[in-house]
Amino acid sequence: MVSLASASPLWLRDNCPCADCRDPRNGQKLFQITELPDALAVDAVHDARTPEGSPAREVVWAPDGHRSVYPESWLGDHLPGAAAPGDGRTEDDKELWAASRFDGGLPEADWDAYRGDPAVRAAALDSVLRLGFVLLRGVPVHDRHVLDVAGTFGYVRETNYGELFEVRVEADPNNLAFTGARITPHTDNPYRDPVPTLQLLHCLVNAAQGGDSGLVDGFHAAALLRAEAPESYEILTRVPVPFAFADERTELRAHRPLIGTDPAGRIREIRFNNRSIGTLRLPTDRLDAFYAAYRRFGELLLRPELQLDFRLAPGDCLIFDNTRLLHARTAFAESGDRHLQGAYADIDGLASTLAVLRREESAR
Amino acid sequence: MVSLASASPLWLRDNCPCADCRDPRNGQKLFQITELPDALAVDAVHDARTPEGSPAREVVWAPDGHRSVYPESWLGDHLPGAAAPGDGRTEDDKELWAASRFDGGLPEADWDAYRGDPAVRAAALDSVLRLGFVLLRGVPVHDRHVLDVAGTFGYVRETNYGELFEVRVEADPNNLAFTGARITPHTDNPYRDPVPTLQLLHCLVNAAQGGDSGLVDGFHAAALLRAEAPESYEILTRVPVPFAFADERTELRAHRPLIGTDPAGRIREIRFNNRSIGTLRLPTDRLDAFYAAYRRFGELLLRPELQLDFRLAPGDCLIFDNTRLLHARTAFAESGDRHLQGAYADIDGLASTLAVLRREESAR
Repeated sequence: MVSLASASPLWLRDNCPCADCRDPRNGQKLFQITELPDALAVDAVHDARTPEGSPAREVVWAPDGHRSVYPESWLGDHLPGAAAPGDGRTEDDKELWAASRFDGGLPEADWDAYRGDPAVRAAALDSVLRLGFVLLRGVPVHDRHVLDVAGTFGYVRETNYGELFEVRVEADPNNLAFTGARITPHTDNPYRDPVPTLQLLHCLVNAAQGGDSGLVDGFHAAALLRAEAPESYEILTRVPVPFAFADERTELRAHRPLIGTDPAGRIREIRFNNRSIGTLRLPTDRLDAFYAAYRRFGELLLRPELQLDFRLAPGDCLIFDNTRLLHARTAFAESGDRHLQGAYADIDGLASTLAVLRREESAR
Repeated sequence: MVSLASASPLWLRDNCPCADCRDPRNGQKLFQITELPDALAVDAVHDARTPEGSPAREVVWAPDGHRSVYPESWLGDHLPGAAAPGDGRTEDDKELWAASRFDGGLPEADWDAYRGDPAVRAAALDSVLRLGFVLLRGVPVHDRHVLDVAGTFGYVRETNYGELFEVRVEADPNNLAFTGARITPHTDNPYRDPVPTLQLLHCLVNAAQGGDSGLVDGFHAAALLRAEAPESYEILTRVPVPFAFADERTELRAHRPLIGTDPAGRIREIRFNNRSIGTLRLPTDRLDAFYAAYRRFGELLLRPELQLDFRLAPGDCLIFDNTRLLHARTAFAESGDRHLQGAYADIDGLASTLAVLRREESAR
């Protein structure tokens, strides 16, 4: 039997599951927290049953006489002391990795199986949440197909680069990505807030010498920095960095730390992109300290054992968490043929799609 | 003459404007912070001129002999001690308001003038950044036209509610918004992370009794809470609140504080929505403290002097900052005809559009 003696009255009442308090169709609450009586207290507690017949506890409330029936199972899961799950976005909910984690192979799925089998789809989406990426193989090599891939789990986030963007050598590139240059590990669009949380890269052609891909787990790197140089880690979580991007039609800026943490101090978001760091303004001693920490984190991110290297083949579509993983590519000969189509999307929609897949699976 | 004695060497070198260090087309940096020499130091400083003939200082670097030419004007603006602008998103860059701020009228623009005159467009977009909203008048009462409005400054953020959503009475609503019920001040989609940062509401019909609109400046309310009850404010910035929404096709959750602050402690993001607060899990004493603070903030948000009341007429399109303003509506008779079309978008794109408009204006 679950005891209600330790429960906070306002908390318990705010979680009343009755149809007057909460819309049974979507769980939305139908009252305001300000509408509850000031002197709210538990008047009496009785054994009861839910409408479905499960064991429950009925609370009679003073002063308003409202009655709430809480399933025993809900109380057991939610009373203080029960483990508190996160929302899946901080380091606590991730499997941090170095490159050797994937010696046995990459997390991947065949496109036809992904489309046809909900279990394959769920496993692939789970990889994005847990490991930060998945590689879909055998995706049709069709123009704009990357948008269909995004549509399997969520919504495209259009940006100044378009609904999709072409990663290939351009005559007058507005971004280093559109040249043959080597690109070291970075996250995309740090000058956007909200930053696109997912990126898709669909390989159409990769016949150039070079142009291999790399991924680094930024959460793992930040956790290493915290262990090895706590003062550097602290600085990088505290200093808002002015990221900026401007071209003919665009002028974006966002001031965010390189390592974003939640209020509990857990790593939640990495932004790292040397190309678009603007001019910091701080007292000189703080500038010196920031730059020492920034260099240290930059060196750490280049450790070979952290970077997972692989090569995209036509038909591969990489989906990765742009708030966690840094991506890189080796240089390639600009005369060679290499063409990816990319798109941005958001990870909250992907997590929702996975949750619904799991709900349907457990209902079968 | 500007002194370079106080500058941090890594900072100064990282800001070298030469074409080898920074792509002149887009300002992107072409080197890694890890590529700079460990013992980087200023070897010599000379008076110089920029290629355009403006006064400048040339720095010769040890140990690599690189030369950087910094315009005097840039040094004056950026050396330690110069005022540091923000990215426009925290309370420091906003004009906080109570309802009486608008006794002389709402920030509004006529649709034709907005489309035809860049100065009108710039003033309207500036209102969204500075005050949190603008009201466009005379927007054609056409189905889906709200998407065209979003296209004037940025990109639509598609969600589970669609590319656009219909705000009218529905037979089987999945959200209280789609009934005739009163809705108290709230922000939308707090269970999304990233949350949509802008909302558009385009009024097509408003013939119902009731259904008036209200806006509350959440940054102002949070600043009041900080002044009146610092301990409550502190709790609301520190406790991640589990927001959740689920229906047939969707299962979203995000754990974020009601008052989001940047690393410097400035108010940056408000989430307040009683309907979608899930079950907090904390020790009982912290639950009691959270609920006391939550109620206090909720009461503060209902102060009549904070809420700006107005009525949308057909052809009005309200654009507002969903990370700052709370919106509300009075109840209306479900028999009456009321129909809005809404869409979400993002404020970083709006800020970019405004910055480009200003750049073009100053170039004229």
